[in-house]
Amino acid sequence: MPDRYTPTPADKFTFGLWTVGWVGRDPFGDPTRPPLDPVAAVERLAELGAHGVSLHDDDLIPFGATDTERARLIARFRDALAWTGLAVPMATTNLFTHPMFKDGAFTANDRDVRRFALRKTIRNIDLAAELGARTYVAWGGREGAETGAAKDVRLALDRLREAFDLLTEYVVRQGYELRFAIEPKPNEPRGDILLPTIGHALAFIAELERPDLVGLNPEVGHEQMAGLNVAHGIAQALWAGKLFHIDLNGQAGIKYDQDFRFGAGDLRQAFWLVDLLEREGYDGPRHFDFKPLRTDGIDGVWESARNCMRNYLILKERAIAFRADPEVQRALRDSRLPDLAEPTAPDGLSGLLADATAYEKFDADAAGQRSMAFERLDQLALEHLLGVRP
Amino acid sequence: MPDRYTPTPADKFTFGLWTVGWVGRDPFGDPTRPPLDPVAAVERLAELGAHGVSLHDDDLIPFGATDTERARLIARFRDALAWTGLAVPMATTNLFTHPMFKDGAFTANDRDVRRFALRKTIRNIDLAAELGARTYVAWGGREGAETGAAKDVRLALDRLREAFDLLTEYVVRQGYELRFAIEPKPNEPRGDILLPTIGHALAFIAELERPDLVGLNPEVGHEQMAGLNVAHGIAQALWAGKLFHIDLNGQAGIKYDQDFRFGAGDLRQAFWLVDLLEREGYDGPRHFDFKPLRTDGIDGVWESARNCMRNYLILKERAIAFRADPEVQRALRDSRLPDLAEPTAPDGLSGLLADATAYEKFDADAAGQRSMAFERLDQLALEHLLGVRP
Amino acid sequence: MPDRYTPTPADKFTFGLWTVGWVGRDPFGDPTRPPLDPVAAVERLAELGAHGVSLHDDDLIPFGATDTERARLIARFRDALAWTGLAVPMATTNLFTHPMFKDGAFTANDRDVRRFALRKTIRNIDLAAELGARTYVAWGGREGAETGAAKDVRLALDRLREAFDLLTEYVVRQGYELRFAIEPKPNEPRGDILLPTIGHALAFIAELERPDLVGLNPEVGHEQMAGLNVAHGIAQALWAGKLFHIDLNGQAGIKYDQDFRFGAGDLRQAFWLVDLLEREGYDGPRHFDFKPLRTDGIDGVWESARNCMRNYLILKERAIAFRADPEVQRALRDSRLPDLAEPTAPDGLSGLLADATAYEKFDADAAGQRSMAFERLDQLALEHLLGVRP
Amino acid sequence: MPDRYTPTPADKFTFGLWTVGWVGRDPFGDPTRPPLDPVAAVERLAELGAHGVSLHDDDLIPFGATDTERARLIARFRDALAWTGLAVPMATTNLFTHPMFKDGAFTANDRDVRRFALRKTIRNIDLAAELGARTYVAWGGREGAETGAAKDVRLALDRLREAFDLLTEYVVRQGYELRFAIEPKPNEPRGDILLPTIGHALAFIAELERPDLVGLNPEVGHEQMAGLNVAHGIAQALWAGKLFHIDLNGQAGIKYDQDFRFGAGDLRQAFWLVDLLEREGYDGPRHFDFKPLRTDGIDGVWESARNCMRNYLILKERAIAFRADPEVQRALRDSRLPDLAEPTAPDGLSGLLADATAYEKFDADAAGQRSMAFERLDQLALEHLLGVRP
Repeated sequence: MPDRYTPTPADKFTFGLWTVGWVGRDPFGDPTRPPLDPVAAVERLAELGAHGVSLHDDDLIPFGATDTERARLIARFRDALAWTGLAVPMATTNLFTHPMFKDGAFTANDRDVRRFALRKTIRNIDLAAELGARTYVAWGGREGAETGAAKDVRLALDRLREAFDLLTEYVVRQGYELRFAIEPKPNEPRGDILLPTIGHALAFIAELERPDLVGLNPEVGHEQMAGLNVAHGIAQALWAGKLFHIDLNGQAGIKYDQDFRFGAGDLRQAFWLVDLLEREGYDGPRHFDFKPLRTDGIDGVWESARNCMRNYLILKERAIAFRADPEVQRALRDSRLPDLAEPTAPDGLSGLLADATAYEKFDADAAGQRSMAFERLDQLALEHLLGVRP
Repeated sequence: MPDRYTPTPADKFTFGLWTVGWVGRDPFGDPTRPPLDPVAAVERLAELGAHGVSLHDDDLIPFGATDTERARLIARFRDALAWTGLAVPMATTNLFTHPMFKDGAFTANDRDVRRFALRKTIRNIDLAAELGARTYVAWGGREGAETGAAKDVRLALDRLREAFDLLTEYVVRQGYELRFAIEPKPNEPRGDILLPTIGHALAFIAELERPDLVGLNPEVGHEQMAGLNVAHGIAQALWAGKLFHIDLNGQAGIKYDQDFRFGAGDLRQAFWLVDLLEREGYDGPRHFDFKPLRTDGIDGVWESARNCMRNYLILKERAIAFRADPEVQRALRDSRLPDLAEPTAPDGLSGLLADATAYEKFDADAAGQRSMAFERLDQLALEHLLGVRP
Repeated sequence: MPDRYTPTPADKFTFGLWTVGWVGRDPFGDPTRPPLDPVAAVERLAELGAHGVSLHDDDLIPFGATDTERARLIARFRDALAWTGLAVPMATTNLFTHPMFKDGAFTANDRDVRRFALRKTIRNIDLAAELGARTYVAWGGREGAETGAAKDVRLALDRLREAFDLLTEYVVRQGYELRFAIEPKPNEPRGDILLPTIGHALAFIAELERPDLVGLNPEVGHEQMAGLNVAHGIAQALWAGKLFHIDLNGQAGIKYDQDFRFGAGDLRQAFWLVDLLEREGYDGPRHFDFKPLRTDGIDGVWESARNCMRNYLILKERAIAFRADPEVQRALRDSRLPDLAEPTAPDGLSGLLADATAYEKFDADAAGQRSMAFERLDQLALEHLLGVRP
Repeated sequence: MPDRYTPTPADKFTFGLWTVGWVGRDPFGDPTRPPLDPVAAVERLAELGAHGVSLHDDDLIPFGATDTERARLIARFRDALAWTGLAVPMATTNLFTHPMFKDGAFTANDRDVRRFALRKTIRNIDLAAELGARTYVAWGGREGAETGAAKDVRLALDRLREAFDLLTEYVVRQGYELRFAIEPKPNEPRGDILLPTIGHALAFIAELERPDLVGLNPEVGHEQMAGLNVAHGIAQALWAGKLFHIDLNGQAGIKYDQDFRFGAGDLRQAFWLVDLLEREGYDGPRHFDFKPLRTDGIDGVWESARNCMRNYLILKERAIAFRADPEVQRALRDSRLPDLAEPTAPDGLSGLLADATAYEKFDADAAGQRSMAFERLDQLALEHLLGVRP
């Protein structure tokens, strides 16, 4: 039965076709579920209250399909979108499954593979534009190496820059309203992947010809695979104006890529992330990129899809209550958070240099003895997260 | 007795005063060694073949020293530099030991702490300039948080940007030939530190008023504490033209900050890092930021300092031999490394789109079957590292 | 004001003197708080509802104190225990702070250090017995190495076994009702510590002369520093009958030892741990071994002590509600948990071998298609943890 | 051309059929190599100088094969063994690929799956005995959970104990000369795996009915996935008399299971591991359990197999030279390693208690000031590893 955690399309929840469609093949095991028809996925996700779906080219159209087959599959998919009202806010390219991409796509040592990868991407950009997508995600999962001499990283970054410069040129030339969103990941399937974190991807974008057309699609679990605080990383991406899209899921620490449903894994970071997204007015899709547990049947698939959304709404409710609580607001003042919003030197460099209270007369010991009162503040947050406070 | 791994000042090896001067206090134990006089450190490092020393303000001048005492200590230190010929290519500020910095320095919630931190830094920048340093390192070890509400990361980044804009303004105003080098670290002593990796720091620099005056001082172990490939990260810093300085040391995996001597910890990454620095013509100091094992007396201090340099030279010899080996060069060709140096689309976007061999006529299966021959190449590297190949 | 999460001594919450007494010295910073009088700690913890305190010898009596001073400090401490009613269920030895222990205590290469360590321990065992402690914890934080040749691990294990055999002999000889509890930790302050996990310590105990007198004192954060599931580890310790004591705290992933208050760090594992302890009828102390944030003053110290207990009680309430929920019970059946309690071969080996339905006639494909329904079960747990379910 | 690192069968190098036979399917990609005929693998490994091969049942006989097909495949395989002289020192069961094992095998919640798993194992034990294997490996890769309520760990350990008690009963009943070797792993493919480390597995064995028949098959990379020192872990296994078999490979830190060839990954730990195995007279197979890089064709497969053996022999040579070097022996004495071999209390407890020099008259400060001289010792090791010392 619906309750206040039941989503509606206004919540902008979206799912990759490959998420609910994951058949459960892992490095040590065969599939545990049959393939899922993309049209069935669209229908069921619409029923559950989702806003949209996203897709790789190969999720919809098998690699190597004829043009006729391709057209038929697209038409059928568009029909399903039309009758369900689901949007396709984002699309992406599969540049990792086929053996040819074993050494990368845009940064493969083999130039013909790089050229094919660009053409494959461009072809699907056309489809993305046709489906109304506004974001084109680029996860370079194969761009990397296991060994030191196998990849010259500076040359590889040259090739990666070239690729994005070509792709943005294409989008501009076609007049598409489409921006790119790079998805960083530290490793797996490669031993080390290029642009391993939010930071590296942001830094890379600054070197492009059309940096305005390229932003980020950070994934919760990917940052956590490097032991990084995902809310901190997303905050830096927002600060740089580059949070174009986001992949929400769960990861339990530094290990293989787990792709749990959102709400599983690190619950506390999930809370702070939702708090950040909601406070900052991020208005893009809340996109779930997860894998329903391989142990479960199709029941678990829909259960987990439903719960991704439900958990977001629970955490959103808790984050809003936290910020609205007068006791929290007092605690934030006790911890001098409002002070952090004040410029350090509103009087400029000269004013700072001339101010003896800033240095010569500063009472360092007194400053060292002030309590930051963070234990209190954090406990209030925990109690809101746990629903203990009325 | 000297051998071909005995350093000379031309090798540009430098050491922090705080490295050989570390007394061995750790989170669970009291000092195991007495304090080391900075002048003694200078003398001994010069004997060992070092090129220079670097220092925090408080390494030389105890926090809170009078101006007279300060002047005396500086004069005495300058004398030692003069008679030994050691340079001071880099200096930095201690913004972490005093209790007042417990919540940060440039991003402390308390504004007066932020102001003091800037003034403390500026005071030492004057000394750095006086000593002839060309690089001023900024390690923001206390800029971070253990709990989610205690730090608003976007505001903190505003304050951090403000700090660097003020500091670069000061340097320009004074006419100092000094550039800043940010040293990233993911955590410890804070639960999560701002600008946790090379990537995050590069991205931050792009937002500054005078980005040309700010680069990086990456530390080997800090990147490895996030499980990242340090040679990859340094390569991206070089690619961005931002490797202003480097901290060489050793770290054995994702755990507390170990600061082993260079050559300890991840030996393979050390090899690839030296290969990269030497091939790229990085011409800054090879700066060691390590802690001699707490188990050792002063004998171990000098032993480890000597071996930092020795290990660099051993690895340099091996890297050069690796690149010079005709069999390696053949293996690199077999792995199509030269192909990576070629533009993907020398014919531009239109040429790429018009080329049917790039997509429509591309033989994907044949491409998937080509061996990259990386096992062979990596074994050649290992055998050069181990000195097995003649 | 008191609420249902306000502790009483019946909850058996205990604290190390060193926890609330931590002055905030870390590897990069000086103390931020003054020392805390052990008597003041006892009084305040009693007010907060604690059941007892635990201590290292040096927490109460400074290393090197005279016998007179020692007697005076003990008498004063006993008085405080008497008037507050606090117990001392556990004591332990500081074998890590003094420089002599830099290479270990029971496994130091230097034999005289090993002998001193045993005598120091024995002296404090007498005090522990006198104070009524029933558990004597042994954390071998310095028993380890940073380098490969510095410690011969098999010999070190011989020495460690010898130490425990001598200590248990002493306890038996004295007729003390005292059992030992080994506290594993993977690293920090040593690069690698012997007996790094619950498993290694359990295995070690099996090799002792009096294994019945030795069990475990696992610490939540220590297992998590190796990326291990702490509830799984504690379950194995319980399964082996070896959970003699427990250290509750918080840790946010694989990094330096954080020692957050209980409830901070990995919230989900904290929930499952409390669920396990309460279901299994573990009846020892719930001992908190944490460090109040260094950013905070004494207010944060007591706030965090109070919240360790409060968080345990919140999680306990949630775990009980989870297990009592009929929908959860149905979900557990759907996931065939009751089936796991059934012997696999109640009919013995011969019965199993003779049963064609077990193999020859087994429908493997049908078995592969059954859903385990874990997504549903885990969501129910999450909703109980978050207090969403009525 | 052969050199002193060219293996012979006397070196006891063995390979899993599944290693050279790995087709390169990973979580994100399709196979890059065609299946390899087990007979071809046997022939090529024999040519390369291997001593034997090991196998899962399904490596040789596809799951679900008819008895006739099974017999044919076995006969053909035995022929290949006969003409090449290769041994089969170890065999194991595939209890992870088929979807039925998604929740485990011996600890699956479903009892019929557990029964099938036992029968599948028993069937292959017969084959193992027939092929002359002396070790039967048990890797419980699916015995674990991703979520807290899905597995009651104590019950699961009951079932695991039951399984090993039944299997050892079977082996005894049949009179097979076969011992079991448990292979621990912390995670992947399950979120957390039971018996995650060497320690946990050793502790488990102590609870079995026939502990003498069960030991360990540790895998280098598995311990490193938990950030543990693999040489330390293996030393504890040897100390407990439980190193029945070993899986050698490479892993670059805490991340997904990489299964690099031996010599890749953590080179220093590989060196110390070989030093340990050779000094201790471990006389079982040196078994390689690795995956040739997916980027490579069949050339890389044989290259990597050859190099696993070659790297072992290089490291062995270096370890022997290290131990034989008089300067190393002096350094070991300087670090008091010989002292560690001496009992701490050869005079027993009474002697220790009566010895005033052990405590009352002990000069703690002098002890704290002694250098352990570990930096020197470790540098000697590094220089032997790198082949620098003559």
